[in-house]
Amino acid sequence: MVNENQHTCSASSSSRSDGGSSSGSESSKDSSRCSTPVLDAERHERLREKMRRRQDSGDRWFSLEFFPPRTANAAVNLISRFDRMAAGGPLFIDVTWHPAGDPGSDKETSSMIIANTAVNYCGLETILHMTCCNQTKDDITGHLQKAKRLGLKNIMALRGDPVGEEWEEEVHGFNHAVDLVKHIRSEFDDYFDICVAGYPKGHPEAESYEADLKHLKEKVLAGADFIITQLFFRSETFLKFMKDCQAIGITCPIIPGIFPIQGYHSLRQLVKLSKLEVPQEIKDVIEPIKDNDAAIRNYGVELAVSMCRELLDSGMVHGLHFYTLNREVATTEVLKRLGIWNEDPRRPLPWAVSAHPKRRVEDVRPIFWASRPKSYIYRTQEWDDFPNGRWGNSSSPAFGELKDYYLFYLKSKSPREELLKMWGEELTGEESVFEVFTCYITGEPNKNGHRVTCMPWNDDPLATETSLLKEQLEKVNRRGILTINSQPNINGKPSTDPIVGWGPSGGYVFQKAYLEFFTSSEIVTALLKVLKKYELRVNYHIVNVKGQNITNAPDLQPNAVTWGIFPGREIIQPTVVDPVSFLSWKDEAFALWIEQWAKLYEEESPSRMIIQYIHDNYYLVNLVDNDFPLENCLWQVVDDTFELLNSPPQQ
Amino acid sequence: MVNENQHTCSASSSSRSDGGSSSGSESSKDSSRCSTPVLDAERHERLREKMRRRQDSGDRWFSLEFFPPRTANAAVNLISRFDRMAAGGPLFIDVTWHPAGDPGSDKETSSMIIANTAVNYCGLETILHMTCCNQTKDDITGHLQKAKRLGLKNIMALRGDPVGEEWEEEVHGFNHAVDLVKHIRSEFDDYFDICVAGYPKGHPEAESYEADLKHLKEKVLAGADFIITQLFFRSETFLKFMKDCQAIGITCPIIPGIFPIQGYHSLRQLVKLSKLEVPQEIKDVIEPIKDNDAAIRNYGVELAVSMCRELLDSGMVHGLHFYTLNREVATTEVLKRLGIWNEDPRRPLPWAVSAHPKRRVEDVRPIFWASRPKSYIYRTQEWDDFPNGRWGNSSSPAFGELKDYYLFYLKSKSPREELLKMWGEELTGEESVFEVFTCYITGEPNKNGHRVTCMPWNDDPLATETSLLKEQLEKVNRRGILTINSQPNINGKPSTDPIVGWGPSGGYVFQKAYLEFFTSSEIVTALLKVLKKYELRVNYHIVNVKGQNITNAPDLQPNAVTWGIFPGREIIQPTVVDPVSFLSWKDEAFALWIEQWAKLYEEESPSRMIIQYIHDNYYLVNLVDNDFPLENCLWQVVDDTFELLNSPPQQ
Repeated sequence: MVNENQHTCSASSSSRSDGGSSSGSESSKDSSRCSTPVLDAERHERLREKMRRRQDSGDRWFSLEFFPPRTANAAVNLISRFDRMAAGGPLFIDVTWHPAGDPGSDKETSSMIIANTAVNYCGLETILHMTCCNQTKDDITGHLQKAKRLGLKNIMALRGDPVGEEWEEEVHGFNHAVDLVKHIRSEFDDYFDICVAGYPKGHPEAESYEADLKHLKEKVLAGADFIITQLFFRSETFLKFMKDCQAIGITCPIIPGIFPIQGYHSLRQLVKLSKLEVPQEIKDVIEPIKDNDAAIRNYGVELAVSMCRELLDSGMVHGLHFYTLNREVATTEVLKRLGIWNEDPRRPLPWAVSAHPKRRVEDVRPIFWASRPKSYIYRTQEWDDFPNGRWGNSSSPAFGELKDYYLFYLKSKSPREELLKMWGEELTGEESVFEVFTCYITGEPNKNGHRVTCMPWNDDPLATETSLLKEQLEKVNRRGILTINSQPNINGKPSTDPIVGWGPSGGYVFQKAYLEFFTSSEIVTALLKVLKKYELRVNYHIVNVKGQNITNAPDLQPNAVTWGIFPGREIIQPTVVDPVSFLSWKDEAFALWIEQWAKLYEEESPSRMIIQYIHDNYYLVNLVDNDFPLENCLWQVVDDTFELLNSPPQQ
Repeated sequence: MVNENQHTCSASSSSRSDGGSSSGSESSKDSSRCSTPVLDAERHERLREKMRRRQDSGDRWFSLEFFPPRTANAAVNLISRFDRMAAGGPLFIDVTWHPAGDPGSDKETSSMIIANTAVNYCGLETILHMTCCNQTKDDITGHLQKAKRLGLKNIMALRGDPVGEEWEEEVHGFNHAVDLVKHIRSEFDDYFDICVAGYPKGHPEAESYEADLKHLKEKVLAGADFIITQLFFRSETFLKFMKDCQAIGITCPIIPGIFPIQGYHSLRQLVKLSKLEVPQEIKDVIEPIKDNDAAIRNYGVELAVSMCRELLDSGMVHGLHFYTLNREVATTEVLKRLGIWNEDPRRPLPWAVSAHPKRRVEDVRPIFWASRPKSYIYRTQEWDDFPNGRWGNSSSPAFGELKDYYLFYLKSKSPREELLKMWGEELTGEESVFEVFTCYITGEPNKNGHRVTCMPWNDDPLATETSLLKEQLEKVNRRGILTINSQPNINGKPSTDPIVGWGPSGGYVFQKAYLEFFTSSEIVTALLKVLKKYELRVNYHIVNVKGQNITNAPDLQPNAVTWGIFPGREIIQPTVVDPVSFLSWKDEAFALWIEQWAKLYEEESPSRMIIQYIHDNYYLVNLVDNDFPLENCLWQVVDDTFELLNSPPQQ
């Protein structure tokens, strides 16, 4: 049996909030391998340790609860919401378990798969809810094994709702959440962090408030690491509950569940389900405005903000858990007003770190997938090990097959009709393709008045950093240098720079200028002549769909293009141009022309044939300017190329 | 059997002289580990491949022959000579085998140990001579196994001189060099590169010139990789010999052995040994000036230069082998006049790379041993693996015991009397110790008129780089901050910078400012108060002889203090401040007070007690200024410390 003390005492004793110390049992396991500098201690910690660290440092935090969506489209939207809300810096999110929705299945809308996506693709610390009533031990164990396999590390252990009106205990089954907690600890030892539910007003089915507190203590003694409470309407309710818990010896973190009222009907429904009573003073305000959604939401935000302030001011509360109802506006508003929405989150690395425990040592990625991070994670999910502290020459395992890119979360978020409006109902030639790229860069509407907000290679509008290069990018795209990735050179900006900064404060970040584009073989021929002049300065890789590869890069050696220097640490070099992975990226980049763009058009149609022509004949080019302290020369390379093309042929 | 073609064809096909390609069978063996960027392809090549690379690139080279010294003092001097002559960039050196001098033993003057020192401690590609006559197969095998164990990779296979007047063949023994070549290949396969001797005039004992050529071809067919010739006096002699070799199918490299005449007696002796005849035109010049050493040497240099020019101009010669007779001046002069002495050798890394094949992946060292690299190599000689591309937290194996520092090549080069003149015949207090440190920094003579050219922690005069900091160092040493190591901050200087540059051209090198010193506990107390103001900027480690350790550095994480950014490569970070190894260095640094300094004085003498007091009570401090783009703040830290010490005590 695992007892409570073992859990609560295992937290790191370090109080440095920037996470300098790498103590803790998990990280010491890695000590025999060549390890990577620990930039972000939390990345290596369990959820309960992160909670303890925040409590020690006095930093306030929040978490967000979501339920699984009903349709695949809703799932795609929910995942975008995860990405947006991740920007505010939640300590974790949790995904509820809907027994009716086949929650442990591989369906794209199941609780399991949504939680999987949150952990692996959105990089969010995630708790998966799990209920136990009406399920066999084998079913439960199967779900837990699957969760572990997917990289989920935290379970919210719940009883679940009875099926009929009356609750009947099963003799050998799971009748209470405590049975599930015990099962998890007996089958999975200390692998999972376990959360249980607390009821500030007592569970509606409990004999008494006191009896319910005893049940809660049993759950903690059985191995639960922390408690999230049911919603409540007054801060006194929670603070009394917390004191009562402490009085009977519950010492683990207790996190208040906050429900910002967002509408009359959702409130009614929730009250019905939770069997809670809404205080009269709230009813008095809401009833008169029940048809005015905006007014109710404003009131709900006000109410939540003032209740949260009371909780935080009490000194007993460090974190707040929000029941979002899968909505964004009200919760974000409350968090912003409380000042705990992280407006400018520190990026631990220049790319979003995956929360899968296996990937915790990942610290370098090829630049190619910069705009398709989910695809990169998907295609590397089978890797057992992340290149040992650096991207070894031949140490990168094979990339996953391309056939998988139809997976729902790798698909474009926009429906076919919208894509056609952006990328052209009918293409008249290569120039109309140039036009699409140009509109994507400039943000100007195309001929038909539609803005191009995504491209096959970029799910999202242009990154802030890229917009630093906007003017130059526009110019070259107009002329058929179809850019899909770029970064400016940076010569030692502070790591806190809002646009290009990453890593802990006090450091300096650097970049080599990078430019990646598709272009015609005619332009490539001229470009290669021009590149001779830049031989020692510019590294290039030029490849067509057949894999014909022209490069001046030292054999198979990666070129570090983003790195950072931090106090008291080794150099971090998280982004490389890696010749081996470029050939995998090439397959994906060329395939996107066909799968995402050509297939919008009828077979044999001129539009489709234009895209097919580009796919078959263009080259994918990447250029690195190694002289990062000087002005980026890549634009000059392109200018020289066009000058050469436009000069009269030599006699 | 290994035949000649296998050898000569295995050379790398790359013609990039900066060594971008990492082809070659040896390096591919490393592909499964996380490898380090290949900055210097030659570092990973066998001697025969290096020779081939130089031949392909047209770069001319030279090599140097030495014989083992007779006394330990002479050995220490010879090793200093290796270090100085290494600066000119020889492709290799070779060490002759003196059967009478117990050449395979562990004596500090044996051929084996001198060659070992050259490889491991001086980082020189080294050929060990070995003779075979009058030896058993087991003896020979034992010598070869020992050579292999020590990291020697090249053998010059020789017959050796007969013991008596008349040469008698032994029936089952080794009678000719070819027997040794065959033995090496049969027992050690392809492990060693084998060199054999060629005789441009024919071996004196050969039946004829033609018969001798045939013997030479047999040696090559038996597995020799290249040939070094006996000395000769006219370039035509060598060029004819070379053509004759080629005519009978000898295609491996043939390197002319050059003997700059350095004195009348050494010439006479050599001629007697080699049974060569000195041409009359040379005799005619030398006889009249035979008592004028300088005149003879000048003539010898002239003669060697003009003969070497003829050889190089022939287009048949790429490398020249010099019989140095363990002297430096004449050979260096010839090489400088030929323009093949490398005035400004490119340093592949900021520290001298060891030539031991096991250490080829070593690419990071702690800064602490910067002035005692041989001690570092000695204390890490048992490491099986060099921290896998980076200095892992706990991956550094244990350092060798300190008891070994009395080894002759770790000893001070200066005798006791000289050290006493430099460091004081009699110390009158801590201030007289400050004075010694100060004189070492300034280069000014001490009170008794002696210059302090070495210190227990620094065998050599101040490095050029350190002299950039001279003025500041002088100031702080006078006040009892006894500096033993320092480097200035560097914010992106070209890798070709003559003082701080290293690595291939086209790169940029960086450093964080570093300062390491001994100082009193009183100063440490003030320093610690001052350091609070610099908490985020300056990392420190402060330790006394008992190991009481005060630091603000993140647990066990190394701080990279020297790094370089190169075209098409990952970041190289060859020097770190590593907290784990600092504790090993601390033992060595404190022990040097006693072993090298205190023991110069009588037991119980006041001088000895002063040093003992410092040893027992001072702290060893290192400071890193992480803000490398700004002006070095470490001098300000020291100034603030003295200001605090001098300020009136607070009420």
